[in-house]
Amino acid sequence: MVWDINKLKHYIIIDMKSSRRDFLKTSMALAAAATVTSPARLFATGTKRLSQTKETSGTDKMVLTFEPFEARMKHVFTISGSSRSTTPIVLTKIAYRGYVGYGEASMPPYLGESTASVMDFLRRVDLSRFSSPFQMEEILTYVDNITTNNTAAKCAVDIALHDLCGKIMGQPWWKIWGWSNKDLPSTSVTVGLAYAPDGSIDREEVRKKTLETLDYNLIKVKLGNTKENDKTMINTIREITDLPIVVDANQGWKEKGQALEMIEWLARKGVQMVEQPMPKLLLDETAWLRDRSPLPIMADEACQRLSDIRKLYGAYDGINIKLMKCTGMREAREMITLAKALHMRIMLGCMTETSVAVSAAAQFASQAEWADLDGNWLIANDIFTGMKVVDGRITLEDKPGIGVEPIK
Amino acid sequence: MVWDINKLKHYIIIDMKSSRRDFLKTSMALAAAATVTSPARLFATGTKRLSQTKETSGTDKMVLTFEPFEARMKHVFTISGSSRSTTPIVLTKIAYRGYVGYGEASMPPYLGESTASVMDFLRRVDLSRFSSPFQMEEILTYVDNITTNNTAAKCAVDIALHDLCGKIMGQPWWKIWGWSNKDLPSTSVTVGLAYAPDGSIDREEVRKKTLETLDYNLIKVKLGNTKENDKTMINTIREITDLPIVVDANQGWKEKGQALEMIEWLARKGVQMVEQPMPKLLLDETAWLRDRSPLPIMADEACQRLSDIRKLYGAYDGINIKLMKCTGMREAREMITLAKALHMRIMLGCMTETSVAVSAAAQFASQAEWADLDGNWLIANDIFTGMKVVDGRITLEDKPGIGVEPIK
Repeated sequence: MVWDINKLKHYIIIDMKSSRRDFLKTSMALAAAATVTSPARLFATGTKRLSQTKETSGTDKMVLTFEPFEARMKHVFTISGSSRSTTPIVLTKIAYRGYVGYGEASMPPYLGESTASVMDFLRRVDLSRFSSPFQMEEILTYVDNITTNNTAAKCAVDIALHDLCGKIMGQPWWKIWGWSNKDLPSTSVTVGLAYAPDGSIDREEVRKKTLETLDYNLIKVKLGNTKENDKTMINTIREITDLPIVVDANQGWKEKGQALEMIEWLARKGVQMVEQPMPKLLLDETAWLRDRSPLPIMADEACQRLSDIRKLYGAYDGINIKLMKCTGMREAREMITLAKALHMRIMLGCMTETSVAVSAAAQFASQAEWADLDGNWLIANDIFTGMKVVDGRITLEDKPGIGVEPIK
Repeated sequence: MVWDINKLKHYIIIDMKSSRRDFLKTSMALAAAATVTSPARLFATGTKRLSQTKETSGTDKMVLTFEPFEARMKHVFTISGSSRSTTPIVLTKIAYRGYVGYGEASMPPYLGESTASVMDFLRRVDLSRFSSPFQMEEILTYVDNITTNNTAAKCAVDIALHDLCGKIMGQPWWKIWGWSNKDLPSTSVTVGLAYAPDGSIDREEVRKKTLETLDYNLIKVKLGNTKENDKTMINTIREITDLPIVVDANQGWKEKGQALEMIEWLARKGVQMVEQPMPKLLLDETAWLRDRSPLPIMADEACQRLSDIRKLYGAYDGINIKLMKCTGMREAREMITLAKALHMRIMLGCMTETSVAVSAAAQFASQAEWADLDGNWLIANDIFTGMKVVDGRITLEDKPGIGVEPIK
């Protein structure tokens, strides 16, 4: 289903207060839902036009719309504990003076958000109280204060706002932040776990998945299973390729001695780095491990937002920044500054996402040692074009905002 | 003397390699000097125009020019140890595709830079090696690596580059950074020290200076002299006004017990905050003082650049950010992120500067609790308009870049 802004504009004239319930029912049936923050205000803009002549099309109030989208995954996706073949997503748009910014919330089930919770959240966002999308600090502080969690929903507003402001300025965010689009890191692509009915690794399936990654420069493997399964995964991949590997243990190793032993083995197998080897609450054990580990130890589950970074200093070598966890690009930008000031290493991650959220994350590519931005590669029905991977490397074009376009 | 870009353009066609020496001699006599990074490359642009049609005027290489300027101060300026009536400044310009960004280096003598050292530094800056002013990280890292110090000279490049990029984007930096121009802090204005021939405070002169500050909301006083002189300064001001006061001790109190006693006395006199009470190397003593002080203790001399902040954590409540010390707006932006992440308080300072550097610093105003941006107010011959103080408060207009214009 193509997402059509013109169709959504049509809905905006409905009086949402009386008919929102019916409207949403109908829209959900079409797998499309839209809302605006305040239709009354929208109509008021006719009498209160701003003086600028340059941007007279569209309204001079920001209008947030959103709709659910189901991302179909190319392969059933398994991490220690769960499997799935789709990921629920909510796409957002902020329209302002003829410009449109796109955003996205991705809700892998283990993060506690759902299509319903994100749409509930977004219905509470009233952008009509702000006069300009450039008031990012105020707007995003307001959005952040609506609830305690809902980081993906917050991110959907943040990305759309950045895309919008970048388009108004006519520049991509990697340029606005003064960064480069040269020599960007390779993105890793994930070889997902595959189990045989007896719970052991399905080596044939892993071989098949590995073969699909050979055009890339870096493989990511989710471990944290039994010692035997973990070793079988790596050995199976190593039968096929010598590509460097990064490992995400997803908190799977519960004992520090066992974790160290595994990391030493992985280092001998050409693994470059290990994400979240131990449960995030075991900070002292992780610090012990880091002091001895031959590989850098990166925080993933342990690092959600800016305020986490200080606590992780000394226990981890660096952090994995994911927009869906940190509320978006604004906080991610600050996390990068803070991590660098503390001499911590930086990795970029993503969820299963369309090219909207992946392209937003890719704006930061020049600042990361490792990028795991294969979210759009993992899905079969991407509806945007954006960041492209060429010869395994992230590339960024000189397109304003986050550089995405809906696929017609 | 009005600084005329068209006049400078004329100089650019001179073959700098053979005639730079004579050229500079002549220019210095006119109090105007200009140079380009590489005239040969400049001429080459005629054959290698970029495809953009929008910005065809000017060259598609950045051209850096600069000239000395002597800021005349309204009053002889005295801090513990020295007096002066002028401040040497070097003004910079970066031209690119018809846009011009302005910058400035201010060199109060105690910081170790001079007109000669700044001009020597700027002559070494070769911007022709970069294709776009948006490559700020690369350009400013290159500039920073030319020498170890020269922070004011580096700042002169940084500000001009920001002004240029902001103009290309059509937005002021306070907006690009997502900040507000509402409810900005008041700027303090300095009541300078004045001595009688016997070394005591010239109370009549201090009264006169205090009367000039009554339209403002916050007074700054430089102390760190003898206990008697310090108290006489404050008492003399308090005979005239109850305005809140911030104190800059300029490392003047050498013993922690004496410093605490003075701060307790100052707190009773309506002082809000104390900058750099003790010598910057006495970190443990400052931490001792901070634990007991009724007023927040801010780092000034102790905080030059981003890398200093970590060391100051715990010993100071916050930092004074000055563009001339931290190499400019890019690093200042990072210092703000880091200080906030560490829950340290922020103050903005300046040197005696024209409206160029003061307006650059004012872009950060919304992020500071205290602003000491009276640099342009202190001089009699400002040659730019920019940030304005209205009813004692900093105001920022919606003008691109740093929002300055040369006075015709």
